[in-house]
Amino acid sequence: MPDIIYFDQIAATRPHEEAAAAMLPFLRENFANPSSLHQSGQSAHQAVEEARQNVAQLIGAAPEEIVFTSSGSEANNLAVKGAALANQSQGRHIITSAIEHYSVHHPLKNLERQGFEITHLPVDKNGLIDPAAVTAAIGPETVLVSIMYGNSEIGTLQPLAEIGKITRERGIIFHSDAVAAVGRIPVDVNRLHVDLLSLAGHQFYGPKGAAGLYVRKRTRIAPLIEGGLQEDGRRAGTPDVAAIVGLGCAAQLAKIHLAEWSAHAQKLERRLRSQLAEKVSELIFTGHPENRLPGHLSLCVKYIEGEGMLLYLDMEGIAASSGSACISQALKSSYVLDAVGIDPADSQGSLVISLGQDNTDAEVDYFLSVFPPIIERLRQMSPIYKGLRRY
Amino acid sequence: MPDIIYFDQIAATRPHEEAAAAMLPFLRENFANPSSLHQSGQSAHQAVEEARQNVAQLIGAAPEEIVFTSSGSEANNLAVKGAALANQSQGRHIITSAIEHYSVHHPLKNLERQGFEITHLPVDKNGLIDPAAVTAAIGPETVLVSIMYGNSEIGTLQPLAEIGKITRERGIIFHSDAVAAVGRIPVDVNRLHVDLLSLAGHQFYGPKGAAGLYVRKRTRIAPLIEGGLQEDGRRAGTPDVAAIVGLGCAAQLAKIHLAEWSAHAQKLERRLRSQLAEKVSELIFTGHPENRLPGHLSLCVKYIEGEGMLLYLDMEGIAASSGSACISQALKSSYVLDAVGIDPADSQGSLVISLGQDNTDAEVDYFLSVFPPIIERLRQMSPIYKGLRRY
Repeated sequence: MPDIIYFDQIAATRPHEEAAAAMLPFLRENFANPSSLHQSGQSAHQAVEEARQNVAQLIGAAPEEIVFTSSGSEANNLAVKGAALANQSQGRHIITSAIEHYSVHHPLKNLERQGFEITHLPVDKNGLIDPAAVTAAIGPETVLVSIMYGNSEIGTLQPLAEIGKITRERGIIFHSDAVAAVGRIPVDVNRLHVDLLSLAGHQFYGPKGAAGLYVRKRTRIAPLIEGGLQEDGRRAGTPDVAAIVGLGCAAQLAKIHLAEWSAHAQKLERRLRSQLAEKVSELIFTGHPENRLPGHLSLCVKYIEGEGMLLYLDMEGIAASSGSACISQALKSSYVLDAVGIDPADSQGSLVISLGQDNTDAEVDYFLSVFPPIIERLRQMSPIYKGLRRY
Repeated sequence: MPDIIYFDQIAATRPHEEAAAAMLPFLRENFANPSSLHQSGQSAHQAVEEARQNVAQLIGAAPEEIVFTSSGSEANNLAVKGAALANQSQGRHIITSAIEHYSVHHPLKNLERQGFEITHLPVDKNGLIDPAAVTAAIGPETVLVSIMYGNSEIGTLQPLAEIGKITRERGIIFHSDAVAAVGRIPVDVNRLHVDLLSLAGHQFYGPKGAAGLYVRKRTRIAPLIEGGLQEDGRRAGTPDVAAIVGLGCAAQLAKIHLAEWSAHAQKLERRLRSQLAEKVSELIFTGHPENRLPGHLSLCVKYIEGEGMLLYLDMEGIAASSGSACISQALKSSYVLDAVGIDPADSQGSLVISLGQDNTDAEVDYFLSVFPPIIERLRQMSPIYKGLRRY
C-alpha cells in the first residue's frame, strides 16, 4: 500500500505517467514559444494543436471549438463573463443553480453588480435541478443558462441533455461547468446541447495548469485575458505548452480508458458506501444515490466536526476532504449542503471521499478498518453526542 | 554547436535544467491540490509558498505581495483592469505609453469603452518616455499610470524610477509591465516606486505557465478570475504547482546569476551589433543604444521584407523574430516601430535578435557568416533595392 491513501481525487488526480512523460520535452529542448514562426516555435505550436484535437475528441467537439485556459476556474469565468458581456444586447438575465462552484457563482455576482439579473434555481434533496424550473425561469431577457454537470461536494449529476434541449429550442446560450465530470463520465457536447463547457486536466490524470473551455461555433464570448492573438483571439498569453501537452495526453487516455476506470472507481465507491452504512451509525449520505460522479462518495457524519475527522484520517495516512478544495480555507458551512437541506449542525461533519482508477480494494478495506474507531473517538469527545447518550 | 541557434530569447527562454528538474516531483508523486488541508495538499502548498518567497526576493518584495498568474499577459490584465475597476471611485483617467504590449493596450481599450479616459504618451526616436510628460498628463481624475519597463520589440528601458517618484508623490497607482525586464536586469520594486509589476518565468529560464503580479501592500485590485480563495482572493483557480515551483527556482537562480548572465548576453549583443553594422549596409538600429535590455538587438534591414529574412535564417538553423511573438500571426506593421518614427517601408524589414546566457560567441560568429549573404540575396530580389541601384 502506498504511504498515503489518496481519497481526494476530486481535488486533484495524479497525472498518468504517460502524460507526465509527454510533458518533459516541452520543459527542456522544445521550449520555444508556439507563437514564434520559426521551426522551434512551429513544433511547439503543432504540439498544442495535437493536444487541442485530443481534448476535442474526448467531448465530441471540433478542435477549433476548444480554448485552452489555465484552470477550470478560468474557463468558468471566461464562459460566464465572456458570454454575458458579448451577448448582453440580447438580454441581461441569467439562470443558474444554487449549487454552482464559486468560479461560476462569483462571476455572476459581479455581473449582478453590473446590472444583470440572476435567477438561482433550487435543487431537491438529492441535489437535482428540475428542467421544468429552467423552462419556467426563462424570460425574454434570458441570455445565458449556466448549470454544472457534476457537483464536487455532493457528486450529483444534473440532467444536462434535458436542460440543453430547452435552451437550444429557445436559442439561449447554455454553459456547463463540467470540470468534475469530464474524464469521469462520457461527455458529448452535441448530445448535451451545450454551447460552452468547462473542463480541467487535473481532474482526469492530467497536470494542473491546463484546462479548457469548449465554445460552440458561432457562440460569441468576450475574452477575459486580452492581448495577443493566441487561442484565436479568445485568450491572450503565451500558452503553457507542456501542461497543454499533458492535458492532451490525458484526454487521449481518458477517451480509451474512461469506461473501465470509472467502473472501477464506482465499484469501490459502492462497496465503501454500503459497508460504511453498516459499520457507522447515523450517517447522512448526500447527493443523488445513483446519478452521481463515479467514485464520489459524500456524507455527513452526525455529532462530529469535520476538520477533526480529516485530521485523524490524515494521521492514519488517508487524504480526504470536507468539500471543495477551492474554499477549504474558508471553513464556512457549505452552501451546497444548505441547498440540499442538510441541517447546518450535520453539515459540520461533512466528508467527501473521491476515488479514482489508481485506488484499490485494499485501500478501501484499510479505510473501513480505521474510520469507525475515529468516529467513535470523536463522538465520545462531542458534547452533543454524549448528551444524546446520557439523557 | 546545437542544431538550432536560438536567438529568440525574448519569445521564450529554455528552462534551466535545475528549474525543470525541480518541477518533476510535482508532476508525479506530489500532485495534490495545494488548497487541500491534508498532508499531501499542505506539502504542495508549502512548495508554492517557497516559490513565492523566491520570486519576492528577486524583486525586493514581500511574499504576500506576489500573486501568481498563468502568464505575463494575465498579470498585465489583472493589473490594469483590476486596479482601474477597484479604484474607479478615485478617478477614471489612466496614463500609458504608445508602445505597451497588447496585453496592456487591449485591456485599456476595453476600459475606454467602459468610460475610462486613456492618455497615450508618445516616445522619442529611441523609444523613451519623458517623465515630464507623465507629470503634465496627470490630472485630478488620474487613477493609474501603466508604463512598461523593457520593450520586447525595440529593447528600450524606461526611466521607471523617475516616473515612479512622480506617481508616488501624487498617490497615483503605478503599474509596470516588466515581463521582458525581470530576470534580465536588477528590479527592485521599492527603488522603482511601482505599486504593480508584471513578470513571467519563461523570460528568465523558467517554465511557461507561471508568472506573477507584484501588488504593493494596500494596493487594491479587483480579481480577473473570481471564485475560490487562492492567492488571497486575488486570483481563483487551482495553482499550477509544478510551473510555480519552476518559476521559483528560476527566480532563485536569477537572483544569483543575473549580473553574470546579462553581462554575457550584452557582450554578445554589442559585438553582434558592431560587426553587423560593418558587414551589412543600410541597417537602422532601433530602440535606445544604451538603455536597453541586455542581449536585445533590434534593427530594420532596409529594402527587404522581414518574413523572408526570418525564413532564410530559419533554413540556416537560426531562430529569430521580427517583433512580438504574441502578435506574430497578425503580420501587421508594428505600432512600436511606428511610434519611434520608423518609416513603414523600413519596418517591413524588422529583426529582433535576443540573446541569453546560453548563447555563445561561436553562434554569433555563425550568424555573422550567414546573415550578410541572406540580406544580399533578398535585396537582389527586391524591386525597391534594384531600383535604387539602377538609377
